Amino acid sequence: MDIFEESLELHKKLRGKFETTPKARIENQHDLSLMYSPGVARISEVLASEPERASELTIKSNCVAVVSDGSAVLGLGNIGAYGAIPVMEGKAVLFKQYAGVDAFPICVRTQNTEEIIKLVRNISPVFAGVNLEDISAPRCFEIEEQLQDLGIPVFHDDQHGTAIVTVAAMINAAKLAGKDMTDLKVVINGAGAAGTAIAKMLLCVGHDPDVCQPVKEVLICDSKGIISRHREDIKGNAYKVKLSLITNHEGIDGQLADALVDADVFVGVSVAGAVSQDMVRSMADKPIILAMANPTPEIMPEEAFEAGAFVVGTGRSDFPNQVNNVLAYPGIFRGAIDAGARRITEEMKLAAARALADAVDDPEPGRVIPSVMEDGVAAKVAKAVGDCWKNRK
Amino acid sequence: MDIFEESLELHKKLRGKFETTPKARIENQHDLSLMYSPGVARISEVLASEPERASELTIKSNCVAVVSDGSAVLGLGNIGAYGAIPVMEGKAVLFKQYAGVDAFPICVRTQNTEEIIKLVRNISPVFAGVNLEDISAPRCFEIEEQLQDLGIPVFHDDQHGTAIVTVAAMINAAKLAGKDMTDLKVVINGAGAAGTAIAKMLLCVGHDPDVCQPVKEVLICDSKGIISRHREDIKGNAYKVKLSLITNHEGIDGQLADALVDADVFVGVSVAGAVSQDMVRSMADKPIILAMANPTPEIMPEEAFEAGAFVVGTGRSDFPNQVNNVLAYPGIFRGAIDAGARRITEEMKLAAARALADAVDDPEPGRVIPSVMEDGVAAKVAKAVGDCWKNRK
Repeated sequence: MDIFEESLELHKKLRGKFETTPKARIENQHDLSLMYSPGVARISEVLASEPERASELTIKSNCVAVVSDGSAVLGLGNIGAYGAIPVMEGKAVLFKQYAGVDAFPICVRTQNTEEIIKLVRNISPVFAGVNLEDISAPRCFEIEEQLQDLGIPVFHDDQHGTAIVTVAAMINAAKLAGKDMTDLKVVINGAGAAGTAIAKMLLCVGHDPDVCQPVKEVLICDSKGIISRHREDIKGNAYKVKLSLITNHEGIDGQLADALVDADVFVGVSVAGAVSQDMVRSMADKPIILAMANPTPEIMPEEAFEAGAFVVGTGRSDFPNQVNNVLAYPGIFRGAIDAGARRITEEMKLAAARALADAVDDPEPGRVIPSVMEDGVAAKVAKAVGDCWKNRK
Repeated sequence: MDIFEESLELHKKLRGKFETTPKARIENQHDLSLMYSPGVARISEVLASEPERASELTIKSNCVAVVSDGSAVLGLGNIGAYGAIPVMEGKAVLFKQYAGVDAFPICVRTQNTEEIIKLVRNISPVFAGVNLEDISAPRCFEIEEQLQDLGIPVFHDDQHGTAIVTVAAMINAAKLAGKDMTDLKVVINGAGAAGTAIAKMLLCVGHDPDVCQPVKEVLICDSKGIISRHREDIKGNAYKVKLSLITNHEGIDGQLADALVDADVFVGVSVAGAVSQDMVRSMADKPIILAMANPTPEIMPEEAFEAGAFVVGTGRSDFPNQVNNVLAYPGIFRGAIDAGARRITEEMKLAAARALADAVDDPEPGRVIPSVMEDGVAAKVAKAVGDCWKNRK
């Protein structure tokens, strides 16, 4: 039985990967009066006049909504709300296991951007945070942006979770290669949610220049080639136009192969086989390859090494350096909730990336990022993120 | 420390009355591959093509949304979404404890009827049922009606939960008084969600006449007096106009005191002190008083008995015959979910009331309804409700 059939059997057995568990049992009439009516009326009165105390008196203290419309699930594409449920449930389980966060899947039967924004606003009272997930670009950008005033952290994991773990791996890989981050030329293949967020993080968009120094250059490619200010076909996509202005300072046009010449880092959030050995050979000394297409990377690690790669990371658990969002989001929400953060700032994301890089005691090319099975990683991320919020200017 | 302060201390300690608990732990990379990526992709693919299998493979197998807009919370009125959270959390705890149902509070920050309807539709994929709660009349009627095509049970507990437990108590009380249900004259004080549902259930609205025989007469009063077809002031409220057509066959006008003359049953879903001893004395032989105003009944039991009451029920736990919704909703959803019911039919509600009445082995005036602390009540209700769905015509 392969992993997929085994997973199906497990899902049939479990019939839902988590359950709700009361924190106190009702053994008698007195317990009922405390947990429910009439005693609960007192809590309702308190919250009617002081709604902010919900974080102290209700599940809002620890509860995150995992919201998806199923428009970009795993590598499966737009499979809708029902297809999204098992993934969001899985995230809820990981939230609890890695960071003690109670999460609940909200899989919505609409893909209308405005409706999703309104819905998240409307259900927000019971939640301490919102993890947006598997929502297609560019709708995911607008949804996340519009919700930043909600007063609780709203974080699109496909963007920032991926960016944080990618940058963490890059920090350690660059250090091992003897290169300064500010000297790196990075090529990103894939200009969707993840690629865009990685580019923005590497370029310190929204950051205080004292805290974050951008890499030297970022080139980002979509399926048509390098995004540049000359590209007429991107004019209708405001997010790609913005990318064309903040990346590619020299206005280079061409394909991925052209972009990779003399690049220090390749970041793949695209499709299997996008990178050839010749492309790796054209890169600068000690090439860093983060080939995260799932389930098959842009180039397989052994091919990349054969062509001279110095560090290779993928999204897979059967190779070293698994770049996996689960290293980031549980700790990020844990830290943000415990610090009472009202949003996830750019500084908090960078702090998470640095904490994750620092969580590797002795980095080496086969270990630039912690394993998802390592204990204590989420706690380190949480501390860095929480401290960052508390010390914000 | 009174019950309210004790409840507040408990809520401060618990910081949320339930948590989420993974049904399986992730101990290693293999577990992660089964519970989450890549294995979960198989489940997503299955559900993309066969969404109905979510009931077999995800938390949709057992999960109910408890939805409130906080517009009519307990006796506190329109206190908003935050004030509703502790009540809905409490219901979630009772759902789990009494019937093993995983419930989650959805407290919405809008009181716009259309928005609530759309929101419930949009979040429905992950749920096996929707318990509407503490939504003010007449909005609650429209919201519930519009959602009956959702394909999962949508049940407004303030209406039908209250009606089911009230009718159950009335069945046993009438039997003890030696009266046939079809001979009863029932006066209901309060024409909101609960009063309306009780009237409709007693009159078998929507029922097969072979299954349900209406009581002889129902008079229902609002704050202005008896609802009758002569009342000009109700013309703007379609629900009250409908009540005026199905109740009060003789078109009597007047106040509650006028209605109660020769009545067999008083049902109070109104306010403290609405009923006097003289009113009880004006009723027919062996008056049945179900005075459910909270926390202070329409008439206190000792006063009612002094004036000749035969059976007295209240909403309170410190008197006999506590008419409490918790006797109904956990079992109703348990039965409906297990039977794969797509809605809660009128017959299922009646079956629940009869099962609840039958759950009292030897009814006596001080025991016409089971105690909320009794084991096995929800299971009996669940069986009756599930059988009713399976045997529907």
